[in-house]
Amino acid sequence: MLIVKKFGGTSVADKERIFNVAKRCIEDYRKGNDVVVVLSAMGKFTDVLVQQARDINPNPPKREMDMLYTIGEQQSVALMAMAMDSLGVPAVSLNAFQVKMRTTPAYGNARLIKIETDRIKNELESHKIVLITGFQGVDGMDNYTTLGRGGSDTTAVALAAALHADACEIYTDVEGVYTADPRIVPDAKKLPEITYDEMLDLSSLGAGVLHNRSVEMAKRYGVQLVVRSSLSLAEGTIVKEAVNMEGMLISGVANDKNTARIAVIGLEDQPGVAFKLFNHLANHNINVDIILQSVGRDGTKDISFTVAKDDLKEAVATVERHRNTSLKYSKIDVEENVAKVSIVGAGMMSNPGVAAKMFEALYDAGVNIKMISTSEIRVTVLIDVQQTEKAVNAVHNKFF
Amino acid sequence: MLIVKKFGGTSVADKERIFNVAKRCIEDYRKGNDVVVVLSAMGKFTDVLVQQARDINPNPPKREMDMLYTIGEQQSVALMAMAMDSLGVPAVSLNAFQVKMRTTPAYGNARLIKIETDRIKNELESHKIVLITGFQGVDGMDNYTTLGRGGSDTTAVALAAALHADACEIYTDVEGVYTADPRIVPDAKKLPEITYDEMLDLSSLGAGVLHNRSVEMAKRYGVQLVVRSSLSLAEGTIVKEAVNMEGMLISGVANDKNTARIAVIGLEDQPGVAFKLFNHLANHNINVDIILQSVGRDGTKDISFTVAKDDLKEAVATVERHRNTSLKYSKIDVEENVAKVSIVGAGMMSNPGVAAKMFEALYDAGVNIKMISTSEIRVTVLIDVQQTEKAVNAVHNKFF
Repeated sequence: MLIVKKFGGTSVADKERIFNVAKRCIEDYRKGNDVVVVLSAMGKFTDVLVQQARDINPNPPKREMDMLYTIGEQQSVALMAMAMDSLGVPAVSLNAFQVKMRTTPAYGNARLIKIETDRIKNELESHKIVLITGFQGVDGMDNYTTLGRGGSDTTAVALAAALHADACEIYTDVEGVYTADPRIVPDAKKLPEITYDEMLDLSSLGAGVLHNRSVEMAKRYGVQLVVRSSLSLAEGTIVKEAVNMEGMLISGVANDKNTARIAVIGLEDQPGVAFKLFNHLANHNINVDIILQSVGRDGTKDISFTVAKDDLKEAVATVERHRNTSLKYSKIDVEENVAKVSIVGAGMMSNPGVAAKMFEALYDAGVNIKMISTSEIRVTVLIDVQQTEKAVNAVHNKFF
Repeated sequence: MLIVKKFGGTSVADKERIFNVAKRCIEDYRKGNDVVVVLSAMGKFTDVLVQQARDINPNPPKREMDMLYTIGEQQSVALMAMAMDSLGVPAVSLNAFQVKMRTTPAYGNARLIKIETDRIKNELESHKIVLITGFQGVDGMDNYTTLGRGGSDTTAVALAAALHADACEIYTDVEGVYTADPRIVPDAKKLPEITYDEMLDLSSLGAGVLHNRSVEMAKRYGVQLVVRSSLSLAEGTIVKEAVNMEGMLISGVANDKNTARIAVIGLEDQPGVAFKLFNHLANHNINVDIILQSVGRDGTKDISFTVAKDDLKEAVATVERHRNTSLKYSKIDVEENVAKVSIVGAGMMSNPGVAAKMFEALYDAGVNIKMISTSEIRVTVLIDVQQTEKAVNAVHNKFF
């Protein structure tokens, strides 16, 4: 069996944890499996690098940021190879250049185009555990790129797809996917299984277990994932195409505090205005989340949307840059103290009234709703960030 | 003009020094020059990495050590590019993969084979300062390699040769090459010029200013070097083919405490014994320095030689591994508390009695000589490490 295992930064934060991961990988190796391991940078090392960079240049060039970031995973894989060697198992570390992990040239937010598998297969054939740097790639001009938040998950899934792996295991510091964040809702339950679509909505809504691009890729290539803890032997949560959840309306309640709302007020009420607005943002690699359009005064319209907090400054600057040229509007309004709370579940497609039940729970708890967005398997509301815990608990109690 | 500038680890040890280096490079850039900068890892970062590695594996695989080491220079060049950007000058950082700096596959002690210059030239044409990781290379299989101690100097000289640079400036924490180590001999004098050969002997004997492989390469390709301080504007020392030193017998007194003596006693007195011994050591990339062979008892012979302290353990293990197979001997004797003291100078070729004058100085100072080795422009003695300062001062006083 060929197994791809991915361990995040906390799992390799120090010597003890590195050996813990090494031993878990060696267990699979000793059973005769081919083992490919994807690692993130150690613990807080990425934060240290960000601090170093900002100290020198508050607005460092993105290409050079990626050049700096990529040393983190290289450190992890090299040290892991040394740990495995000291346990008597041959291992080899490979970075994005050595694998040839080609991406688009979007620094800080690149997408994988192609992964060469020759080198990896050769190393597996010579009975080595292969350790690969997550999160990083190289563009067509040999510049380093990084895949954005949670990019190591994407690396692992892409490798599993490219290598036709039999299993892809994502190790994290929680035991799987829960019906809500256990730190907020003490009686949240671990789900044995979840569909790609539900996981997608959960991860894009801040459940924080898997990066949504990794789930999208898993869905596209049919890579079955297991999310489990690197610190316990508990069974994790399987993420796959279809699950049997008999009558379970929703699979989880998610919350996300990394969000900010931007309202562009008094836009011309003409065709193409929304297109132009979001096209400008897309050109700057800004992911927009909930979008709400409403009629404004005097034949204008207002468009509100949410972005990740990190992108807020650039999103506002982008909109302002096009003021009076391609975008005509009267003002921008920004709200930062907001959070998203969502319910997700394939079951709600065939169950009317799920959204109403959620709104009722929030009403009973005295939580005011600022924006609403729904998909076939998800209902999301934007609320005051102070009320997040109260809202998540109220909704979770209502459904579970 | 195309200028290659190399800065060592102390020159980029912190934010202030990084900006200091950035400004010096930008000065040359603003005058209309093409500027290529080679950097080492920041300050003590390499030591931190070595500590991390040894903590995990006291004897880490050399391939993985190089994988770990190479993150150091990548960090330096990325941060330097950010510093230059913040000063309004476009810069681009390149690592060994991006340049394609091909080396032999000898991890930890690789030799440069070929440097591609296309990428560097393209970046220079688009008016960027090009920042290149020193010390590191990639072998034919895309594995990272490192060039051994002082390897960044070699990188700089090799780049200057490959790019046909007009100048190659090696910045260090001293102002140039001195007649002796100024920390030991207070009235040591800075040399305005020195020949490649003298520099070679000085650097291989522990003067610690330039790595000898970089000087060898400079001599081979006729790259004129300047050694100068990154912290002052003082003129440095020019290293070139021939200098005019009217009557100066020797150009400097060098000392090297990073040495250990191994004596292999009771070897068979047969042809090929020395070849076999040093061939085994060469196969393990162990550089041997002074060699002395003497007649032993009962038709045997003894061979003594010195190696760098780092290589001592492996050298002894290598000799022991071949005992009773290709090497027959009675015992190995190791002495660690030794130092080399040397006089170097093209002038001594035509001046008999230089060696005698050195021995006289040592005799007068009460320093016992353990081994002697000479070349046309150098006399080296091995002494007790405790007597190094006394010996260097005595010899320096005798000649200057």
